[in-house]
Amino acid sequence: MSLLAKTMSSKYNELAIEAERAFTEFRLAVVQLHVTKVKADNLSRARGLIKEAAAQGAKVVVLPECFNSPYGTGFFPEYAEKIPGESSQVLSEAAKESQVYLVGGSIPEEDDGGKLYNTCPVFGPDGSLVLKHRKIHLFDIDVPGKIRFQESETLSPGSNLSVFDTPYCRVGVGICYDMRFAELAQLYSKKGCQLLVYPGAFNMTTGPAHWELLQRGRGEVICKAGTEETVVYADIDLQYLADVRQQIPITAQRRSDLYTVNAVQEG
Amino acid sequence: MSLLAKTMSSKYNELAIEAERAFTEFRLAVVQLHVTKVKADNLSRARGLIKEAAAQGAKVVVLPECFNSPYGTGFFPEYAEKIPGESSQVLSEAAKESQVYLVGGSIPEEDDGGKLYNTCPVFGPDGSLVLKHRKIHLFDIDVPGKIRFQESETLSPGSNLSVFDTPYCRVGVGICYDMRFAELAQLYSKKGCQLLVYPGAFNMTTGPAHWELLQRGRGEVICKAGTEETVVYADIDLQYLADVRQQIPITAQRRSDLYTVNAVQEG
Repeated sequence: MSLLAKTMSSKYNELAIEAERAFTEFRLAVVQLHVTKVKADNLSRARGLIKEAAAQGAKVVVLPECFNSPYGTGFFPEYAEKIPGESSQVLSEAAKESQVYLVGGSIPEEDDGGKLYNTCPVFGPDGSLVLKHRKIHLFDIDVPGKIRFQESETLSPGSNLSVFDTPYCRVGVGICYDMRFAELAQLYSKKGCQLLVYPGAFNMTTGPAHWELLQRGRGEVICKAGTEETVVYADIDLQYLADVRQQIPITAQRRSDLYTVNAVQEG
Repeated sequence: MSLLAKTMSSKYNELAIEAERAFTEFRLAVVQLHVTKVKADNLSRARGLIKEAAAQGAKVVVLPECFNSPYGTGFFPEYAEKIPGESSQVLSEAAKESQVYLVGGSIPEEDDGGKLYNTCPVFGPDGSLVLKHRKIHLFDIDVPGKIRFQESETLSPGSNLSVFDTPYCRVGVGICYDMRFAELAQLYSKKGCQLLVYPGAFNMTTGPAHWELLQRGRGEVICKAGTEETVVYADIDLQYLADVRQQIPITAQRRSDLYTVNAVQEG
């Protein structure tokens, strides 16, 4: 090999390493929104925060659960839309103008002849709809004389796993209460997901009692917001993830000769 | 019905309710032992603490992982025993004299023509061996230049789920690293276990970093010890457990139409 070829080869290697690193590190933005009763206002502020996140270098942006409507079964029928529709149109344009992958929190979706779903639409940087995740596990509780909240009074559950690919990693999507069911995460892991995203809506009682603990039980909490409308950022380093998983190698050490987690049906 | 019969019936009901309550509440004791290199000394102190726990009203007593031997692959061959053998004989007698269910932490067990296992023997209040749980997931890490610890260098893994019944509830047993594998707990839950016991051995670095967080991720930490040899107690109220599970009813809300966790083979 001539010196020139060697130099070119070395230069090529450097570029290849740099290119590879470009795809093992990316900035993730998580939007916290102060949701009001005015849908157009919610959409407009969400769009502004997506733009702000992209300006800060975010490549993947996540909105909260039920970001275009107040959270409550009484509101869902009034705020529900088809997809595509007003809200998903705004999200598509926002993803395209900011060139980001947009995990669109969730919106009440109407489909299948009047059924309502709690649905997370995901958009690519070209504005295309990549997938829709419909909340699989609806939160129903009924403790007589104490508390009653039944999402299933107005919502229908989804029945599909939701996985999409980015140049950085494969992503699995759930919504809020979906996180309580380890089987979903286990199936996403089996499918090769390295990032799981669960947009959620919690209040100041259930948030500290449940949501933060659920996060801590799954790893280090990198950043968190207070109660204000804001965007929080995390620089995701997939090499660091690989290093940690080498140290606690549970994926390789599962005893698949003894147990399995399987999807019964897939969409 | 005569007044006498009514009174007797009422008295009977009261007794029945009291009897039922007697089996929905019980005291659990968890022993922390300062393990030395002298096996007989470890056994003697464990026996003393079991007796102390029973005197405090404990009905189920748990010893730590590898309580009769220093923790290290180099020690296991020297300290290993058959079951029955010296250590399990002491545990059997201790369970019987204290009339408790005894989850015997773990000991290095020799069986199957020289194979070694990390084994938890469980004894009933009559001193009988109820089951042996052999650690299913061996902890092996090998990060070149950083850390290398391979349980599998000297130990063989178990391949059986371990469930036993008490008058209070059904109990599933794992050992330490087994806790990292949700599938085991999911199978125990499917089998109706209401209490999962994982004897563990952690140090002052890995304990706070991993063990406490693993506990918190699974619920409220009721009590904990410092670094000293001691017994900690918890009064288990199965009715409280039922109440909490009614409020967050994930068992009933699992989507078994979408996913399943199954045992591939069972012992």
